[in-house]
Parts: sequence; structure tokens; C-alpha cells
Amino acid sequence: MAQNIYDTPAFFAGYSRLDRSVRGLDGAPEWPAIRALLPDLRDKRVLDLGCGFGWFARWARTEGAAHVLAIDLSENMLSRARAATGDTAIDYVKADLENLELAEAAFDFAYSSLAFHYIEDFARLVRTLYRALGVGAQLVFSIEHPIYMASRRPGWMTRDDGRKTWALDSYATEGARTTHWLAKGVVKQHRTLGTTLNTLIDAGFVVRHVEEWHPTPAQIAANANLAEDRERPMLLLIAVHR
Amino acid sequence: MAQNIYDTPAFFAGYSRLDRSVRGLDGAPEWPAIRALLPDLRDKRVLDLGCGFGWFARWARTEGAAHVLAIDLSENMLSRARAATGDTAIDYVKADLENLELAEAAFDFAYSSLAFHYIEDFARLVRTLYRALGVGAQLVFSIEHPIYMASRRPGWMTRDDGRKTWALDSYATEGARTTHWLAKGVVKQHRTLGTTLNTLIDAGFVVRHVEEWHPTPAQIAANANLAEDRERPMLLLIAVHR
Repeated sequence: MAQNIYDTPAFFAGYSRLDRSVRGLDGAPEWPAIRALLPDLRDKRVLDLGCGFGWFARWARTEGAAHVLAIDLSENMLSRARAATGDTAIDYVKADLENLELAEAAFDFAYSSLAFHYIEDFARLVRTLYRALGVGAQLVFSIEHPIYMASRRPGWMTRDDGRKTWALDSYATEGARTTHWLAKGVVKQHRTLGTTLNTLIDAGFVVRHVEEWHPTPAQIAANANLAEDRERPMLLLIAVHR
Repeated sequence: MAQNIYDTPAFFAGYSRLDRSVRGLDGAPEWPAIRALLPDLRDKRVLDLGCGFGWFARWARTEGAAHVLAIDLSENMLSRARAATGDTAIDYVKADLENLELAEAAFDFAYSSLAFHYIEDFARLVRTLYRALGVGAQLVFSIEHPIYMASRRPGWMTRDDGRKTWALDSYATEGARTTHWLAKGVVKQHRTLGTTLNTLIDAGFVVRHVEEWHPTPAQIAANANLAEDRERPMLLLIAVHR
């Protein structure tokens, strides 16, 4: 079973205070770039993997989605998501993406935000999604970029010229990375970008777009902290279809 | 016009002494991984972009290729390549990949080793290759990995625990990078991995495999210097088809 860090009190409290938790999709700087990758959701059967507080599921319904199956491992997040809407065309279901079972060709579009980098058996999940999507259906997801995850001690270093530079090592060594973010001992699964793409291709998906997200000049002008995401990518957005 | 660093005496002398120049394909540690991506070359019309001393062109003929058009910008390298064989089914032609013109559907397979990262207008070259390849034809190429190219001052740093880590910055800032390798002022063109893949996809190619090359344990046992390519990838291998 995947680690359920979201239901530890410190993590949940910290996560609940993030801009993307309080303000929803518009609180995530990568949202405009993700949105540009999304197909028309009108009348689509949508799958949301790692739905969190349910912001995307509710938005998909405002875009005309016929139904959203929104999955998460965290009871805390599902409770909050359920409380936020009375929409009966959204089903919030507790499930572990590590051993998810889905009906064949049951969805027209699958979405996931920042969940797949917690998954150990990514190949199994990708095969499950391929079967669960109809022909021509798309999958759009974000993960932490492997450049951001790879190091045993990720962080910035200062060079002799005073410029900061990102410490990268252990890139080819895939597997668990334990970090301290909001809580101690958050376990993520590092995979190279090549492995992520080849896993999708080998399952039958066609790669449509790969975006190593970085902020726009306007975003940096509004929030100078984002500038570091031009130095090394923190987020990876991928769009594929079957 | 692309920089022709290969015809500067210092660079050419240094390059001529590299293992991959003296021993050919088997002197390049990434060759087994590239070879695993190649289609059957029997009776194929092969295009070799940045052919250097012609090792691949000659090998393709031993694999049964019907014809090889081998292109390079360097007179020095083409002279050496021409002198190495009397095979009339290999044509060595001097041309700049920046403004290459090729006949439509004239090739069944295109190959390039470590040349495309010198190209400024990669999108133009990719469109040219797409037109020059027949339906189902493959393109397999290697470039320096953007992780290796991105920094304004690429190199290793030593951390307080004595472990070395790769300095990464400026990843999202694409364009020229001037380095000193064999000669001063070698100009390479940094593009993110996302841009490289999206340029291929937007031209119509289907991505088949993306490999952020790293050495095998046997290769590291034979040459300990290769171990650093597990810390950060130096080479990127990409296979696509139209």
C-alpha cells in the first residue's frame, strides 16, 4: 500500500494552508499550462486520480463533464471534498492507486495532479489506465520533475560567484526518496523522465506533449519566488492519448 | 551557418584522439544502447547526419543497407571518411544541417550521433527530416542531455559531506551555451527535453523511446570514470518514427 502521508495531522494541516488548497486550481501556478493541455470535457466521463479536496472534479463538472470518479487515499481529503459539493455526478471514492481496479473503457479522460510520484508500481497503474480509457481518450498528469526528486539531498548550493545552482545527483538510481516537506519522512518514488515516458509508450499510449513547467515572466513579476523554477524544473506535465 | 568547430586544428586533433574516433562505434559507451534502438537496416536507404569519420555509415553497409548518404560540415572529417572506404554505395556530402535540403520520402532510416545539439533551428531540421523519410521510417539520434548542457558553468561541485553533485541552473533558458571542450568557444544549443520532444511530435513524429543514457555495472567496472554518468545524464538517445 502507498504511504498515506496526507492523513498524518502535521502534513494535512500544512497542506491545507497551501495556496493550491485554499484557492484551488487558480492557486497552482502550473494550472494555466495544464489547462492548455486539457481536451473539451463536455459530456466526458472523467477520472481524477489523487483528487485531494476535489477542486478539479468540481471544475470538470462546470466544464460540462457528464460524470467524475474522483479517487484519493486520504479520508481527510475525501471528507472535505464531499462536504464541498452536493453534485451527485461526482463520486468520491477511497482507493490506493497502487492496486487500483477500473472497468474497461469506462472513461473518456483521466487526470492526475501531483500524485503519480508517490506510486511505486507506475507500470501497473499505467496499464490499468490504458485499459480503463476508450480509444482516443487522453490522460493528462503532473508529477514532480525527476530533476527535482533525484538527489539524495535535494536543494540549492551557492557557487563561488554567489549564484545559486541546483544540486543534482543519483539521477539514474530510481526508487524511494525520503524528504521532509510539511511532515517528516514523506516518501516519493524517483523515476527518470525516460522511464516515465517509456512506461507510457510501452503500455500503448502515444505521447502528445511533455512540458517541463516553468513560470511566465508575468508570474515571476507577481511572485518572485517562482523564478527558481526557471533554474531547474520542479514540475513535469505530460499529455498522452490511447 | 552552424559553427564548424571540427575544422579548427586544436579541436580536430583532440577529437581524433578520442576513443570513439580511434576505435569507432565500439569506442562509444552509448553504442550498445543506440544499437538496441536501430531497425533492421537490410536494403534500407540510410541518412547519416553529422557522419564524422564515417564509422556508422560503413557499419550500416555491413548490416545490409542499400545506400548511405553521409553528411557532415567538416572537410577534415569527410576527407578521412572518404579515405577509409572504396564503397560506392556511401556518398559523403558536405552540408550544413541548418539549411539542409533533402528529397521527399528519399530515406528509410535516419541516424545522427551527437550533432543536433549544435543546431540552432532544430524545428526546421526536424520538418526536413519528416518530409525526407517514408511512412513508417525511423529516426534514431543522440544529443548531449539538456541536464549536461543547461548551466552557464556546467561542472561538479563538492558538498559538505564530500560527495560530488552536478551544478544545474538556467534549465528553462534555451539558446547558445559556449563551452571549452577540446578547443575554446565551442557553441552548443541548449533546449529542454520537453522542447526537443514537442518539436518532434509537432512535426508529426511518434515518440518510440527516450533514453537518458547511463552506463551498465559492467561498463563502470571496466571504466570507473563512467560512474559519474549515473549521477547526472550526459547523453540523451531518442527514437521516433513517422
